[in-house]
Amino acid sequence: MSASFNDWMKTIQAGMEADMSAYLPAAEVVPAKLHEAMRYALLGGGKRVRPLLVYAAGALFGADAQALSRAAAAVEMIHAYSLVHDDMPCMDDDDLRRGKPTVHVAYDEATALLVGDALQSQAFSVLGEAATLPAERQVAMLALLAQAAGSSGMCGGQAIDLDSVGLSLTQAQLERMHQLKTGALLRASVVLGAMAGKALDGAELKALDDYSRAIGLAFQVVDDVLDATADSATLGKTAGKDAADNKPTYVSILGLEPSIALAEQLRRDAHAALAPFGESALRLREIADLIVQRKA
Amino acid sequence: MSASFNDWMKTIQAGMEADMSAYLPAAEVVPAKLHEAMRYALLGGGKRVRPLLVYAAGALFGADAQALSRAAAAVEMIHAYSLVHDDMPCMDDDDLRRGKPTVHVAYDEATALLVGDALQSQAFSVLGEAATLPAERQVAMLALLAQAAGSSGMCGGQAIDLDSVGLSLTQAQLERMHQLKTGALLRASVVLGAMAGKALDGAELKALDDYSRAIGLAFQVVDDVLDATADSATLGKTAGKDAADNKPTYVSILGLEPSIALAEQLRRDAHAALAPFGESALRLREIADLIVQRKA
Repeated sequence: MSASFNDWMKTIQAGMEADMSAYLPAAEVVPAKLHEAMRYALLGGGKRVRPLLVYAAGALFGADAQALSRAAAAVEMIHAYSLVHDDMPCMDDDDLRRGKPTVHVAYDEATALLVGDALQSQAFSVLGEAATLPAERQVAMLALLAQAAGSSGMCGGQAIDLDSVGLSLTQAQLERMHQLKTGALLRASVVLGAMAGKALDGAELKALDDYSRAIGLAFQVVDDVLDATADSATLGKTAGKDAADNKPTYVSILGLEPSIALAEQLRRDAHAALAPFGESALRLREIADLIVQRKA
Repeated sequence: MSASFNDWMKTIQAGMEADMSAYLPAAEVVPAKLHEAMRYALLGGGKRVRPLLVYAAGALFGADAQALSRAAAAVEMIHAYSLVHDDMPCMDDDDLRRGKPTVHVAYDEATALLVGDALQSQAFSVLGEAATLPAERQVAMLALLAQAAGSSGMCGGQAIDLDSVGLSLTQAQLERMHQLKTGALLRASVVLGAMAGKALDGAELKALDDYSRAIGLAFQVVDDVLDATADSATLGKTAGKDAADNKPTYVSILGLEPSIALAEQLRRDAHAALAPFGESALRLREIADLIVQRKA
């Protein structure tokens, strides 16, 4: 990754922090506890991979900055809500997230439930108010986000994940689960970013789908590798938890070294998918590198 | 209420059952347990007050049937998701809903959490695919639904409700809580139904807001009266629960007879607000009557 990539990433991360803060009600607005907890769940860091993807894909077609900011905030709100709900006792029962107590620990379970629910609504609200987009495209983007978030996307993947605990999945079944659980929202980030620039033709959508599929899987393979090899302090969440919970992972199915090799192959696949876009895909290529080379 | 109102209501209730079934993935589609539980939560009855409001308001301006069906399904999905989450152990911990075991009892807590999350996404998906609406109006409708569902609407009201347990609220505070918790989505039903017909001017929106405010409060006052006077079998949910949970209600603040009188006054206010619409508001007037005169 280039030095300029690091600068670009930091600029977007800082910009998103400010923009997302502005897209949420202030912590003093009634109901104050809910709004404070929504801000706790959404703000204060995180890698912001999904917003980075939105902006990187926006660069393909010179998308408008305001539309990109709103699309990026919307996908990050969906992601943040899913983390809050996934961490709850009836799901993964996790106490630590991004190095901080999870929302149900810092507040309480009822608040965590409402924080997730309200962040999901807020995502559609923020994207629904992207005034600089043509209305036809905005409707398509809202529908795409809803599909990616719902039972045929992220929620569906989470349900398959729950049903898979203690089962021995094949690599194909594991891939299908992750394509929904994390892949659907990563794809939405890429496609929404590109759509913020222009309506996509079939070839463009296919190339972006191929890229998204590759980085989505790479993301999960690397997650599994890190869960098996890194410590909790580095990860900012409880390490070794998937193995302890008897969840199927790439490392448990393929082994550690083959998993690392698969991640590298997926990085090359992601680069190959971007060939039609030439130089405008620089940031998307660098994000694929980031996903595979990250240490946490 | 006229005999024709009963027929109209039954026609819409039956039509919504069929339409909403079609707007959800089939129970066999993977993940099957999630889809089966989503159908369990949404289908199989209920008064469908919100869809009735959508259709009744749609009659003001001759709205297109397909757009009304999608708007009605969207608000009912938001309502159904909120019931699933509200019933969970960390919230109201209720075992019975519409005479059936609640979702977390019939399935499990993790499934109930995902059912609510996925139904919320599905609401935006269904409204986002209302192909017969002009895109500008569709965007406005999606943004309006998101606002009504989120922290400045339904979720916000739920948060205030949680924070109010054991407190003695004033009538004004209680009204504010209910205007968010149930009123915001009832208003959205009315306004979305009207918007399915045409873009609203300020006077039209004001009249519909006044109507919505009156029926929203009436709905809650009558709920409190029924909670204090009816039995669980009639209600299809646990009676006397709010009092047992030490939640503030209109009956606990005003007393029973003044609460009944207030509901009647709100019914008259609702009728008065509809005066500018003349005969086209017949069904909206009859729904106000239904809300105040219902026995469950």
